[in-house]
Amino acid sequence: MRGTVLYGPRDVRFEDRETPRIEQPTDAVIRIAATCVCGSDLWPYRGLQPIKGPTPMGHEYCGFVEEVGSAVKSVKPGQFVVGSFATSDNTCPNCRYGYQSSCVHREFMTRAQAPVLRVPLADGTLVPTPDGNPSADLIPSLLTTSDVLGTGWFAADAAEVKPGSTAVVVGDGAVGLLGVLSAKEMGAERIIAMSRHEARQKLAREFGATEIVTERGDEGVQRIIDMTNGIGADSVLECVGTQESMKQAIRATRRGGHVSFVGVPHEVQLDGQELFFSHVHLHGGPAPVRRYLPDLIDLVLNGSISPGKVFDLTLPLEQVAEGYRAMDERRAIKALLRP
Amino acid sequence: MRGTVLYGPRDVRFEDRETPRIEQPTDAVIRIAATCVCGSDLWPYRGLQPIKGPTPMGHEYCGFVEEVGSAVKSVKPGQFVVGSFATSDNTCPNCRYGYQSSCVHREFMTRAQAPVLRVPLADGTLVPTPDGNPSADLIPSLLTTSDVLGTGWFAADAAEVKPGSTAVVVGDGAVGLLGVLSAKEMGAERIIAMSRHEARQKLAREFGATEIVTERGDEGVQRIIDMTNGIGADSVLECVGTQESMKQAIRATRRGGHVSFVGVPHEVQLDGQELFFSHVHLHGGPAPVRRYLPDLIDLVLNGSISPGKVFDLTLPLEQVAEGYRAMDERRAIKALLRP
Repeated sequence: MRGTVLYGPRDVRFEDRETPRIEQPTDAVIRIAATCVCGSDLWPYRGLQPIKGPTPMGHEYCGFVEEVGSAVKSVKPGQFVVGSFATSDNTCPNCRYGYQSSCVHREFMTRAQAPVLRVPLADGTLVPTPDGNPSADLIPSLLTTSDVLGTGWFAADAAEVKPGSTAVVVGDGAVGLLGVLSAKEMGAERIIAMSRHEARQKLAREFGATEIVTERGDEGVQRIIDMTNGIGADSVLECVGTQESMKQAIRATRRGGHVSFVGVPHEVQLDGQELFFSHVHLHGGPAPVRRYLPDLIDLVLNGSISPGKVFDLTLPLEQVAEGYRAMDERRAIKALLRP
Repeated sequence: MRGTVLYGPRDVRFEDRETPRIEQPTDAVIRIAATCVCGSDLWPYRGLQPIKGPTPMGHEYCGFVEEVGSAVKSVKPGQFVVGSFATSDNTCPNCRYGYQSSCVHREFMTRAQAPVLRVPLADGTLVPTPDGNPSADLIPSLLTTSDVLGTGWFAADAAEVKPGSTAVVVGDGAVGLLGVLSAKEMGAERIIAMSRHEARQKLAREFGATEIVTERGDEGVQRIIDMTNGIGADSVLECVGTQESMKQAIRATRRGGHVSFVGVPHEVQLDGQELFFSHVHLHGGPAPVRRYLPDLIDLVLNGSISPGKVFDLTLPLEQVAEGYRAMDERRAIKALLRP
């Protein structure tokens, strides 16, 4: 088969690789129905996160089980499954507390931009769709539950968005946009999206944003403070991962409010004293997607949400390099890849 | 009258100052029954926090109301009152959310090591004892509600100590010790105090600590991990405020667990990526003592708790300099001062 490999900054190749097969009795091998490019893939693509050599790429996936190892009990060949970007046994203490993305046996997936994928710890990582195979038009939305929606959902959950509250979303990438959708589902009354990009503003509104703020940094913070009676927002979802965006999120939050951060922070240092006097709650990390998967799959299947709208570019998998380029240049919000 | 003034590192003087009087209609003037030296007073005392010139000291206080301004409604002359170290109007949005120590009209008290004290925003800052004047033996415990107990209580509350949970307390100062007491009151099943000081260990056990860890830094973290099935504690109360203690607290917490920090951080920087992968919740700041005061006063008056035991040195107020010295040299946990 051919799969996606990153060789260096802006050097993505779709090239021959060995077809994955069962290696451990707890593995499954799945045939990918759809995969995609993640915002986090852009860090190494842009050379902002070093790689050690040619690196297979991709960690968002859904598809049909082809084969399972001898110890796998909860999924079987022929089923349609979605899995988390982080594997989990779903039985260790961290998993039982709902933090499957910190499973003691966690591995981060990194070979999903390919037609066939080996998934370790299949029982604890994969969730089959309940009533047989989903209709083709739902596949993009189901794919989002694997990471980008699960991460936006965690952003809203970790920021403790509550019915009637005011939520601010910092970052208008696909995670931020699905943070808006998640805040809406959790009942936020006001959802302020910070974005200066027209197509993304439009999608944010479609997902439930009630207001848009185009300013950034100190000006953006001041706008949020002004819009919230001078005190800041109840919940702020930080969906970028830079020093600037973290600072912006913390400063836009009211005393006692909640800041979540769900993008891997790159060169972020938080000043202890500023955090202290900000009086915010802070919680984040790699989204425990596995915790949310059953519910999110249900919401997609019953038509409550259409997170697949974040895919504004669909390409054949072999054109994966163009998917990276389009997202890097912000021509696309998120690129769907079909094998 | 004479009051306490810090002139520079280790230079505390008890000297003539103007007797406070009502300045604003919202003020009260109280005659101090007892005051004390705070761990946070030691930062400028040790020269680790610059002062701009001679600085009046003291922010923990209780006593009898002598006079109130024309706008004061909730306290009256003759009443025994306790107040927070931070003034609050108790009506602004931050106050209504329970963060009175971030009141939009907040002032930090700083003249309480004196026989007479002016308290701004008396209605929102002071709480009178419910059934007349308390017996003299309860005054040390009532005094602790003004800051040190309120801060230990916030540490346990912000770390979300729950019945049956495991709590770790980093720091064996008076705040840490009362963090132990607070965790006990909130129902923690295991309370692990990190202390290498025998007298403090003893008091920690008296307040409810079930285990003592004497190791610090990486070794201390490893001990906590080993004692908690390899995953870390549910709640960790950081009661010191240094880079080392914050790191120790975060690393001793389980994924999804809660870290509180209640001492002003001094030169603390938190690495975003470590915090991200730690998966902890983080919350802290100046304790909203006013939120807790009515309940804590009740717990003292009905004999449920005896936080006044942290005072292992009692001095006449005029010997305040010796109180600082004894705490600086760790000869005393906390010095009570009687005018």
